[in-house]
Amino acid sequence: MKKNSLDYTSIIAAARGDEPADLVLAGARIVNVFSGEMVEGDIAVKNGLIIGIGPYEGLQRIELDGKIVVPGFIDPHLHIESSMTAVSEFARTVAVRGTTTVVADPHEIANVLGAEGISYMLASAQNQPIDIYFSLSSCVPATDMETAGAHLPAEALAPLIDDENIVALAEMMNFPGVVAADPDVIQKIEMARRAKKPIDGHAPGLSGMQLNAYVAAGISSDHECTTAAEAREKLAAGMHIMVRESTGAKNLEVLLPMISARNSRRMMWCTDDRHPHDLIEEGHIDYIVRRAIGAGLDPIMAIQLATINPAEFFGLHDTGAVAPGRKAHLVVLSDLEKLRIDKVFSHGRLVAENGSIRSEIPRPAAVAVPPSMHVDPEELRFDIPVAGTRIRVIDIVPDQIVTRQSVTQPLISNGLAVSDPDRDLLKIAVVERHTGSGRSGIGFVRGLGLKSGALASSVAHDSHNIIVVGTNDLDMHTAVKAVVDAGGGLAVARDGKILNALALPIAGLMSDQPVQSVRRSLDNLTAAARDRGVTLKDPFMTLSFLALPVIPSLKITDRGLVDVDRFDFVPLFVE
Amino acid sequence: MKKNSLDYTSIIAAARGDEPADLVLAGARIVNVFSGEMVEGDIAVKNGLIIGIGPYEGLQRIELDGKIVVPGFIDPHLHIESSMTAVSEFARTVAVRGTTTVVADPHEIANVLGAEGISYMLASAQNQPIDIYFSLSSCVPATDMETAGAHLPAEALAPLIDDENIVALAEMMNFPGVVAADPDVIQKIEMARRAKKPIDGHAPGLSGMQLNAYVAAGISSDHECTTAAEAREKLAAGMHIMVRESTGAKNLEVLLPMISARNSRRMMWCTDDRHPHDLIEEGHIDYIVRRAIGAGLDPIMAIQLATINPAEFFGLHDTGAVAPGRKAHLVVLSDLEKLRIDKVFSHGRLVAENGSIRSEIPRPAAVAVPPSMHVDPEELRFDIPVAGTRIRVIDIVPDQIVTRQSVTQPLISNGLAVSDPDRDLLKIAVVERHTGSGRSGIGFVRGLGLKSGALASSVAHDSHNIIVVGTNDLDMHTAVKAVVDAGGGLAVARDGKILNALALPIAGLMSDQPVQSVRRSLDNLTAAARDRGVTLKDPFMTLSFLALPVIPSLKITDRGLVDVDRFDFVPLFVE
Repeated sequence: MKKNSLDYTSIIAAARGDEPADLVLAGARIVNVFSGEMVEGDIAVKNGLIIGIGPYEGLQRIELDGKIVVPGFIDPHLHIESSMTAVSEFARTVAVRGTTTVVADPHEIANVLGAEGISYMLASAQNQPIDIYFSLSSCVPATDMETAGAHLPAEALAPLIDDENIVALAEMMNFPGVVAADPDVIQKIEMARRAKKPIDGHAPGLSGMQLNAYVAAGISSDHECTTAAEAREKLAAGMHIMVRESTGAKNLEVLLPMISARNSRRMMWCTDDRHPHDLIEEGHIDYIVRRAIGAGLDPIMAIQLATINPAEFFGLHDTGAVAPGRKAHLVVLSDLEKLRIDKVFSHGRLVAENGSIRSEIPRPAAVAVPPSMHVDPEELRFDIPVAGTRIRVIDIVPDQIVTRQSVTQPLISNGLAVSDPDRDLLKIAVVERHTGSGRSGIGFVRGLGLKSGALASSVAHDSHNIIVVGTNDLDMHTAVKAVVDAGGGLAVARDGKILNALALPIAGLMSDQPVQSVRRSLDNLTAAARDRGVTLKDPFMTLSFLALPVIPSLKITDRGLVDVDRFDFVPLFVE
Repeated sequence: MKKNSLDYTSIIAAARGDEPADLVLAGARIVNVFSGEMVEGDIAVKNGLIIGIGPYEGLQRIELDGKIVVPGFIDPHLHIESSMTAVSEFARTVAVRGTTTVVADPHEIANVLGAEGISYMLASAQNQPIDIYFSLSSCVPATDMETAGAHLPAEALAPLIDDENIVALAEMMNFPGVVAADPDVIQKIEMARRAKKPIDGHAPGLSGMQLNAYVAAGISSDHECTTAAEAREKLAAGMHIMVRESTGAKNLEVLLPMISARNSRRMMWCTDDRHPHDLIEEGHIDYIVRRAIGAGLDPIMAIQLATINPAEFFGLHDTGAVAPGRKAHLVVLSDLEKLRIDKVFSHGRLVAENGSIRSEIPRPAAVAVPPSMHVDPEELRFDIPVAGTRIRVIDIVPDQIVTRQSVTQPLISNGLAVSDPDRDLLKIAVVERHTGSGRSGIGFVRGLGLKSGALASSVAHDSHNIIVVGTNDLDMHTAVKAVVDAGGGLAVARDGKILNALALPIAGLMSDQPVQSVRRSLDNLTAAARDRGVTLKDPFMTLSFLALPVIPSLKITDRGLVDVDRFDFVPLFVE
């Protein structure tokens, strides 16, 4: 449903009233995002476009009886991979929530499959019930401290930047590289500027002259503000601010007070990463709008942040408003304040009603995805020969992605350092899965609480190697083998058997099953981990960040332990 | 001064503080158009770009002592030809007024010289003290009721639309053609959409379904609103509204009350057509901002309409704000409320101070312009053999561009209808000057008051043939000959002699002299006309619209009298 047949003659004839409209939504109370006012009228649609508000005749007429109509919601920055579902399932899930346009950064799959992963996402986005645009992942791999599935320098991105469905250069998280004017980074920025596409930012805490340098380079948005002061400074420097409310990072409450009539045109909502549970229980952009209105933000302003603001930011002048010539992406509400969604139209077609996707909406055939698990489980060894008396330990901080580091004596058995569940000191390994190297980084972690068995996952930011933690090597092997055999996924093993698993055959990141089923599997996996003694709220999410060597303080990659504070590898044994 | 050398490495290094800035404007109070607030700080400039606000060191430092700095003003729609001066003189005239960016529609010169005229303007715009962008004239000729110097269908415009200095398709005044989905019009619209450039509108009074059709076709702005209700309707339909305050059409006062915090992001100021007198006495965009603030509009909002709003409309993301990475187009004010302009910086260079252009600012060499007067004055005949008893007369309405029509008996002499100054019934002719056809349309006009002599002008909208009115054929000949001999211009003749003249050798539209001298010449011409009995305030301006066959009611072109109400030619003799 991406392309409208732009038969101007017919659209113009219908708009001036000389041809019937395809559809008239009669008796609507419409949020006009330009005037900031509510207007009453009949909305006419032809060939998937709004032709106008007025006394139109239509082949089909739906009486809205004063219900509210707002433009379909736009998410300007998210990673579909975080939904852990395929593009088609994600599209249906958020369409129900009134989202009709997203700009997705395929950063995760690009780290696994490179440009082929981006192409897979572009192909999968065709003929979905919503419009899926992409931003071009700018930082693959995120660091050189780990082995990713791909390396995308400027030359690798160049063939993609002019794709009409790529509307931006994605979050430039290598902000030190921008501020240092790193040549490859500059080349990417110049490429996006030549293509006249905005460059999304990602610069947590950047301030002062460093921020000036980042903005002067051409970065024009940021979704990492965690204080109102940070958002104010970035906005004043010319950045568009995306207020993020993701599963892992919730910034709405702290940023709401800085949104005013004077600056709101520079503000948007975004979801960044939302897991199945949140998508199902809370929702998508609708959830943020609802929360914002509930907290006292002017409802029309809250709608503007979800519609015309992101449309203008990306130059998507054919969406984001209920106005002539724009795509008929329309959300019918039975209550504006509570944002009760009654119906969702995409390209003038009713795609969702009463919280369900319409049964006639087709699910496009799945696009083939290359295999991504290049591991021979038989070759893996998790032995740690003793090479000293004390070891570095990754200390988990519950519900946070930062860790601490400490030093302790390992439990020794047969000349090997082994897991010691009594002290909650468990072996952790990151198994390289992209190149078939057979390489693993091995260390110790504390804070999971696992008493028996092992957990393994192929979702491990940002390179998404296989991360595994266990009380013994057999279960670690078993769990990793299950993940590899499923083509990627999550697993809990004990006594050499798989207790629970979720296959993620799409790049080891996404399921091919319905979101409800993915959510149930995740719940079951968490329950199985809890049964084994795990005390964390979301152990697989915690695991997924233990391999991310840009977040302090001690992390582990396939190449070993990384002291993030010193940004260097460190040996497991201290002395 | 159009291109900045974009040495990112150096700009970024200076922004982060590792290289000195070229210039620091210290102690500024800055209007931040993003936050809508005033901030205090030092503005640093490098390579013509703002690198940031902060504690920067610079090779040059100017203490502003708390003076106000606002972004340079942007005029989103004007015709440089109306200044009657060359591009370089226009640029200097408005630079002094704080205008650092204009989007000019070369509609007048395009009607004379076609694509060659547009290329002349593009070439002339290089290396001027302000940034001059263009919109591509969409309606040349304006009608087929007259002979223009060029015909620019979609195919003729196609080679120009991707020019980087062409940022829009210009005012689509053929709104009936849009609403009727005329194929050539649609082709032009599709061309602009493919090039991702906005399409300026021009649709006085268009409303309802007709307006919906116009907007659905992709027209995204309008500068012809003459009532607040009209502006409200167009804005609600998705158009950006340009509030125009030109020499001939003043819409500010009536539109000011509809501008609010809710809708102001969709509003801009524009000048459209400003004659030398107004540019000198009142000013340019600064005049509108000053008037708006004086009438009670929030000063920061008034500045936004003059800066960030037009920048965003055209996607000119490198200007319109005092922020890192943007061109250092800066206006220093000694008073915000009164908009007293102290200094003007363009690309970080001081170009004007205390109302004068800086002496070191070079005037680029003039670009050669082709001749445009294809007339042999010796061949002209203004005889009107009697062909009936009563004639149609164009009745001037003082200070308006509409006319009325009436019927009367002509004065007869030797079998010819001749001027009759006693009844203020004068011969008027439009001499075709583009093709050398020797054709003239001849008729009678009433309302000038001319008692002796003749006035002639090569400024005659929109085809700019030579319009001449006189009490006798000799003086009509003399005046036309003077205009032709000067390569275009204005002239007043009596008794076979030229009393006063202004040469407009650039396409018969623009002088190559300073604006002050042009203004004096115009004043002298008006005085000479007044001395001959003319009662109109601005007789040459009135003359210039008598040949425009899209404004009611009776007009004259080189092809004859046009009854605009019936949109057809009519004979001079009624019976």
